[in-house]
Amino acid sequence: MSELPTVTSLDDVRRLMAALPGPDQAAADEAAEHEAQLTKPAGSLGRLEALSAWTAAWQGGYPPRADNLLTCVFAGNHGVVAQGVSAFPPSVTEQMVANFQAGGAAINQICAVVGARLKVIPLALDEPTVDFTTGPAMDEAACVGAIAAGMAALEDDVDILCLGEMGIANTTSAAALACSLFGGEPASWIGAGTGIDEAGMERKRVAVEQAMALHGEALADPWEALRRVGGRELAGIAGAVLAARLKRTPVLLDGYVCSAAAAVLAADNESGLDHCQLAHLSVEPGHRRLADHLNKTPLLDLAMRLGEGTGAALAAGLLRAAVQTHNGMATFADAGVSGKSE
Amino acid sequence: MSELPTVTSLDDVRRLMAALPGPDQAAADEAAEHEAQLTKPAGSLGRLEALSAWTAAWQGGYPPRADNLLTCVFAGNHGVVAQGVSAFPPSVTEQMVANFQAGGAAINQICAVVGARLKVIPLALDEPTVDFTTGPAMDEAACVGAIAAGMAALEDDVDILCLGEMGIANTTSAAALACSLFGGEPASWIGAGTGIDEAGMERKRVAVEQAMALHGEALADPWEALRRVGGRELAGIAGAVLAARLKRTPVLLDGYVCSAAAAVLAADNESGLDHCQLAHLSVEPGHRRLADHLNKTPLLDLAMRLGEGTGAALAAGLLRAAVQTHNGMATFADAGVSGKSE
Repeated sequence: MSELPTVTSLDDVRRLMAALPGPDQAAADEAAEHEAQLTKPAGSLGRLEALSAWTAAWQGGYPPRADNLLTCVFAGNHGVVAQGVSAFPPSVTEQMVANFQAGGAAINQICAVVGARLKVIPLALDEPTVDFTTGPAMDEAACVGAIAAGMAALEDDVDILCLGEMGIANTTSAAALACSLFGGEPASWIGAGTGIDEAGMERKRVAVEQAMALHGEALADPWEALRRVGGRELAGIAGAVLAARLKRTPVLLDGYVCSAAAAVLAADNESGLDHCQLAHLSVEPGHRRLADHLNKTPLLDLAMRLGEGTGAALAAGLLRAAVQTHNGMATFADAGVSGKSE
Repeated sequence: MSELPTVTSLDDVRRLMAALPGPDQAAADEAAEHEAQLTKPAGSLGRLEALSAWTAAWQGGYPPRADNLLTCVFAGNHGVVAQGVSAFPPSVTEQMVANFQAGGAAINQICAVVGARLKVIPLALDEPTVDFTTGPAMDEAACVGAIAAGMAALEDDVDILCLGEMGIANTTSAAALACSLFGGEPASWIGAGTGIDEAGMERKRVAVEQAMALHGEALADPWEALRRVGGRELAGIAGAVLAARLKRTPVLLDGYVCSAAAAVLAADNESGLDHCQLAHLSVEPGHRRLADHLNKTPLLDLAMRLGEGTGAALAAGLLRAAVQTHNGMATFADAGVSGKSE
C-alpha cells in the first residue's frame, strides 16, 4: 500500500485501529516449511527462526526481506520539564537533533554498523507541549498532526522499521502515559531517565501523580491519554507504528519512551502491536513492567538506557541475521548432509 | 607479536599459561576518559561502553578496533559416538565441513551479515578420537597437535576472534570435560545436544559417569582432562584462545562446547579467560552452569543451540557497534551539546 489514509482527528485514528490487517499465515507457513529443511538441527537457531517467520508473516509475503532498514527518530519538547524532572536542560533536544543530522550521535554509529538509514523528524521543537500537570499536553490538532507526521515518515518498500526518540523530560511523559494505560502506582513507572538524583525522581513521581489526579477518567481512552500526557514525539511514534501495520512493515521498538508510545495501540486493540518486537530491555525500571503488560520478550538486554532508537537499530542486526540464515542456508538435500538418525 | 612460541608437549602449554600477558590498563583508562565526553548521559550505552573499554584493554592499545573480524570453526570426530549419544550419524561432521566450505551453513550467513571472515579447520576427521569411556580420547601428541593447530589458526592483526566448532557427539565430550573441571553430577552437565531423545540423554549420562570412573584423579589436571575426555576441535579451541591471549586479540566464545573447551584455560589460571566474552547463552542446560563457574554474563540469550560459532559471530555485531559508538560519536564540546544541569 503506497497511499495511507489521511487522519484529521483522533476518531479517524480509532477507525483505522478497528480494522488493522493481520499476519499472512501462508507466508509464515512457507517459512516454517523451508526452515525445517535447512542444514541444522530443528529449532537450533532459536529466536532467529521465529523472527524470520514473523518477518514474513508481517511483511505479507515470502521470502522475508531485511535489506531496506529505516530508523526514524522523532523529537519533541515537553512543558513538564518546568517541574524539574530532567538532569539536562531542554535546549539539549534541539542540540541532539543537530548532532543526529551531523552524524555524531550514538544512533548514527549503530545505523552505520547494521546498514540502516536514519531519518530524524523534529516535531515543533520551539513549541513545547503544555505542562501536563496543569492541563492537556496537546490539543487534538497538535496530537493528530504529530501522529500524521509519524505516519508520513514511513516510506514505501521499507523492510524493517526501527523507532526511536529524543526529548528532554520525555521519560516523565512515558511514565504518565504508561500509568494511564496500565494503572499501578506512579512510583512504579518512574526511573532515573538521563540520570536524575533522588530529589528529581521524587519530582517526577509527584508530576505523574498530579497528572493522574488532574486528568482523571479522561485517561481511560488510550488516544486521549496520549494527547493529555504524551508528547509530540510519542504521538509520532504511535503514528509510525500504525502506518507500519497498514504498509506491512515489521517494527523494532526501542526502550521505555518508545514502548510507552507504542503501547497506546495495544491498549486500543489487543493485537495492535503484533507486528512489533521489543528490541531491548532498558534499565529504566518501568520498561520491564511495560514489556510484561505487552507480553513481549525483549531481544537484547545490555543495560542500555539512551533512547534515540539505539536498541532498536542494534536489534536490527539480529533480524538481518535471522532473515539471512533463513534465505541463504543450504537445505539437507542441496548440501548432501544426512538428517537425524531414526 | 607475530611469532608464537612452538608447543610440542602439554608442559609447553602449561608454561605459557603461567606467564599470560594482562590487560593494558592505560588503554582502558583512556577509553573511560573518552567515553565520559561522548554526547549521551553517562553510562547510558550500558554493556556497550564496557565492551569498548575491554576491547582496548585486551588489544593492548587505544582506540579499540573492530574492523578485522575472524571466525574460526574447528571440527573433529569422536569415538564416544559409539555409545549412541548423538541424534545424527558421525558422517555429518565432514558433510557440514563441506557445507561451511561451500557457504551453505548458518555460520556463513551470520559471518556475511556482521562482516567477519570465516576459516574452517577440520582436524583429522578420518581419525576419530578414542571412545573416552574405554580409554583416553587422545594421546599427548594428538592433543598437542590440535592445540598447536588452534594456535596457528589465528592470523596476525585480527581485531576480534570468534570461535566455534562442529563435531557429532561433542556435547558429550563437553559435558565430560565440564564435569572434570568443575565437578558436580554428570546429569547436571547433560543436555539434548542436536536433539536426542530421553534414552539417548540417559546414554550420555552413563558415558560421562563411566569416563569419570575410568579416568578418575587424572582429570584433576585441566590439560590432562582435555586430552582424556576432550576432542581435537576442543583442543583446537583451547589453543586458539591461548594464541589470542598471546597475540592480544579479544575473543568471543560461542556456546556449550566452545565454552567447555575454553574453560580449560580458566581451570589452569583464574585470569585465563579474562580476554574472552561469552557471546551467548545456549539452551544446552550445562551452559548456564558453565557461565556461572566462569563468572561471565552472556551478551545474547536467543535460545540458540547450533554451535558453529553462530552465537559468537552474532555477538560480533554488538562488539562492532560498541567500538563504533566509542570511536565515532561526537563529544559534548565538538557538538555544542549542553551537559548535565548542576
